[in-house]
Amino acid sequence: MRGSEEMKIVLLSGGSGQRLWPMSNESRSKQFLKILPNEKNGPISMLQRVWRQLISTGLVDHSYVCASKSQQDMIFHQIGEIPFIEEPFRKDTFPAICLSVLYLLDKASVKPDEPIAVIPVDHYVDNHYFEQVAQLGNILDASSAELVLMGVLPEAPTSKFGYISVEPSESSAAYRKVNRFVEKPEQGIAKRLIREGALWNCGVFCFYGQTILDFLQNQGYPASYEVFRREFGNLPKRSFDYEVVEKAKSVVVYPYKGAWKDIGTWSSLCAHMDNDIAGIGTSYDCDDTHVINELGIPVVALGLQNAIVVATPDGILAADKEHSSQLKNAVAKYHGRPMFEERRWGTYRVLDYQKLEDGTEVLTKCIELFSENNISYQKHFKRSEIWTIIEGTGYMALDDRIFPVSAGDVIRVYAEQWHAIRASTKLKFIEVQRGSELVEEDIVRRYLTWAEVESVCSYGVNH
Amino acid sequence: MRGSEEMKIVLLSGGSGQRLWPMSNESRSKQFLKILPNEKNGPISMLQRVWRQLISTGLVDHSYVCASKSQQDMIFHQIGEIPFIEEPFRKDTFPAICLSVLYLLDKASVKPDEPIAVIPVDHYVDNHYFEQVAQLGNILDASSAELVLMGVLPEAPTSKFGYISVEPSESSAAYRKVNRFVEKPEQGIAKRLIREGALWNCGVFCFYGQTILDFLQNQGYPASYEVFRREFGNLPKRSFDYEVVEKAKSVVVYPYKGAWKDIGTWSSLCAHMDNDIAGIGTSYDCDDTHVINELGIPVVALGLQNAIVVATPDGILAADKEHSSQLKNAVAKYHGRPMFEERRWGTYRVLDYQKLEDGTEVLTKCIELFSENNISYQKHFKRSEIWTIIEGTGYMALDDRIFPVSAGDVIRVYAEQWHAIRASTKLKFIEVQRGSELVEEDIVRRYLTWAEVESVCSYGVNH
Repeated sequence: MRGSEEMKIVLLSGGSGQRLWPMSNESRSKQFLKILPNEKNGPISMLQRVWRQLISTGLVDHSYVCASKSQQDMIFHQIGEIPFIEEPFRKDTFPAICLSVLYLLDKASVKPDEPIAVIPVDHYVDNHYFEQVAQLGNILDASSAELVLMGVLPEAPTSKFGYISVEPSESSAAYRKVNRFVEKPEQGIAKRLIREGALWNCGVFCFYGQTILDFLQNQGYPASYEVFRREFGNLPKRSFDYEVVEKAKSVVVYPYKGAWKDIGTWSSLCAHMDNDIAGIGTSYDCDDTHVINELGIPVVALGLQNAIVVATPDGILAADKEHSSQLKNAVAKYHGRPMFEERRWGTYRVLDYQKLEDGTEVLTKCIELFSENNISYQKHFKRSEIWTIIEGTGYMALDDRIFPVSAGDVIRVYAEQWHAIRASTKLKFIEVQRGSELVEEDIVRRYLTWAEVESVCSYGVNH
Repeated sequence: MRGSEEMKIVLLSGGSGQRLWPMSNESRSKQFLKILPNEKNGPISMLQRVWRQLISTGLVDHSYVCASKSQQDMIFHQIGEIPFIEEPFRKDTFPAICLSVLYLLDKASVKPDEPIAVIPVDHYVDNHYFEQVAQLGNILDASSAELVLMGVLPEAPTSKFGYISVEPSESSAAYRKVNRFVEKPEQGIAKRLIREGALWNCGVFCFYGQTILDFLQNQGYPASYEVFRREFGNLPKRSFDYEVVEKAKSVVVYPYKGAWKDIGTWSSLCAHMDNDIAGIGTSYDCDDTHVINELGIPVVALGLQNAIVVATPDGILAADKEHSSQLKNAVAKYHGRPMFEERRWGTYRVLDYQKLEDGTEVLTKCIELFSENNISYQKHFKRSEIWTIIEGTGYMALDDRIFPVSAGDVIRVYAEQWHAIRASTKLKFIEVQRGSELVEEDIVRRYLTWAEVESVCSYGVNH
């Protein structure tokens, strides 16, 4: 029998999260939103909760995260710099899981006969869920199955989830043989499935690396990390369930009894809020109505029933909770610039964007650097930037000169000037960008540490 | 008989307008909101509509506006620089109307035997309403009454308005004798009143100046403009109806049949909107729901019935329309800094406000000057200002020097530096204020025309 200490864990961090718009955006998927109650230091995110649970069950030292590049800063900021498997771009779970397995085999010296468990990071579960995850390797050994799944004992015959139908129990084993999969059945069918012992599919898979290697070879997919990554764009956008699990010959499931929630809609999220109001706001003469406000201006809900009002720098939503599952369709046309981002070095918030009559664009941001952090040495071609330091102290590198800056200072960065800034204390500034095309892509970076910036620049006096 | 050309008109512009929060604020009362459909040049405000109606009935040359100082810029901006009677601060209609009458008698050479008509500016009426207003002086003459009112033929037995009960008609005169006043009666009583010929009180009064002089003297109030204005703070906060009309011996009313709407709630305002959506926004799977958005980020209403969602720089409202009359109570605690103001010289919009840990305040604004306009020559003691010009050209006066400025320039104004700016073309800049107490009161102005600023400063080169 293998102990949990040998099993590798891959945390899948997917989703661009339109379902929690305007709080979630391209870089802030639902798993990063700090919305779960926590006794100290304010609310935590689903990713942070899962990470704590992995720590408390001793699984954390063998854990990897698979996510897109755009999520890397956020993940490192929330849980630290853990081994990171980069999805070249977003596909479904089949390409992401196979990429992760090939990474472990080819890049992390994991042996093909070591068990690997894959877990989504956006589910809200009890601690003993992870104690069960820790046993999946043992069950894989004991059952001789190709795949072990986790299955949740259903609370109600909902048609929102996928069901795992199991064969009648023959032994006292902790696991059951999987019969077939039924995706989102009607309520009547769901009731019958539950009577027959079916479980909810919660997207947890455990297997040996060899199983995936064999599968890839048999199906004609690349079976090495480098080639698979290079071919990523051509891989089918399919789920691991569809492409692998349903084709497997022997699958068992380990039943879990306890909380399991997919906090994927405003309706389910509100059920976890400590208060009806988060941020500056009021609900007056309302029933079962929640207000979440990340802006500095008040939000007032008046006379609403069963509603949610959310205001963030990205937008404003006022919705009936029952309709919140349709949000994705309602906001499909709003794919704007994210107005708030958390980065490894700090955060920024867009205060204003204007396109003037002559086509010039003007973007005003408030940028906050964490103490002892810096923005990389960079330049732009199509914009100038005016920085007004409003709080803290630090050093500015501008065109090969370094000088101290502090609250009250104004720095003018012309197009094509190399610049970087390092915070000594927490440092905030208001930036006014002005130019012909204000896009993230108009940037040339030199990936230098601050010590390297210091070595290429000379210290000057304050401008 | 007197012609309308002799009658003076006083437009009462009251109300701080919490009932249309967050669109209305201290300086933007409901009468200034540009929400009424208009064939060309976009929607107009109630004040602008009333002003056009006064022009078309020839009453405009004898019109005055009575309002607080904080509304003056807005009024001049919307309808031009008309004779202005300044309320020292906001009371009710009794002090405001008497102040206006004393102003006309003492400051504008109006004779005590000339008729004066008082009209609220926040009612939506047909054009022939003003043709009737023009007749009020003739009716005052013909009836020998102390006061003539306008009364609206009721459309429904609502209990929202005051009713004017009239005596049975004895003659073919256009006016009726007033019997008594019934404020907001129950529906049953309202029905009976309507059967008996009662009219809605629409707050229009016509009288000779002498009538008010006599009343003030008899009641022991000051009867000269200067003293009345000085004593303004001690005057009772009462309505003209309560304090004067109900005490008068003979009052007649001139019935008006036509549109008369008090656009004072979101529910009544929405009924006048051309579209369900104003600004960037969507309503998805909603019924009878309106979205009004003045912000640059999208507003999405999802699955709502009979609701209104309003987003402005001052705040965000999501309300059931039926509840919109309770808005005043719901927003009572939000008396913040107005985030958007229209001034005579242009507009400003607050982009961000922060209070830092050390107590320093930082306010970021986008300021727009109309072409050929300027901000007065001024200085502050408790703040510095950084201006980044983002559009247009103009001249900056700073510490007795004048220099040209244009898009891309940055100007730093330290505390205690005299400064002003004049727009040659439309001129926009982003201002970052930083200081210990960012209040409107921290300002010393020299009331100079731009020509005078030029005469005290010398021209320099660009900084």
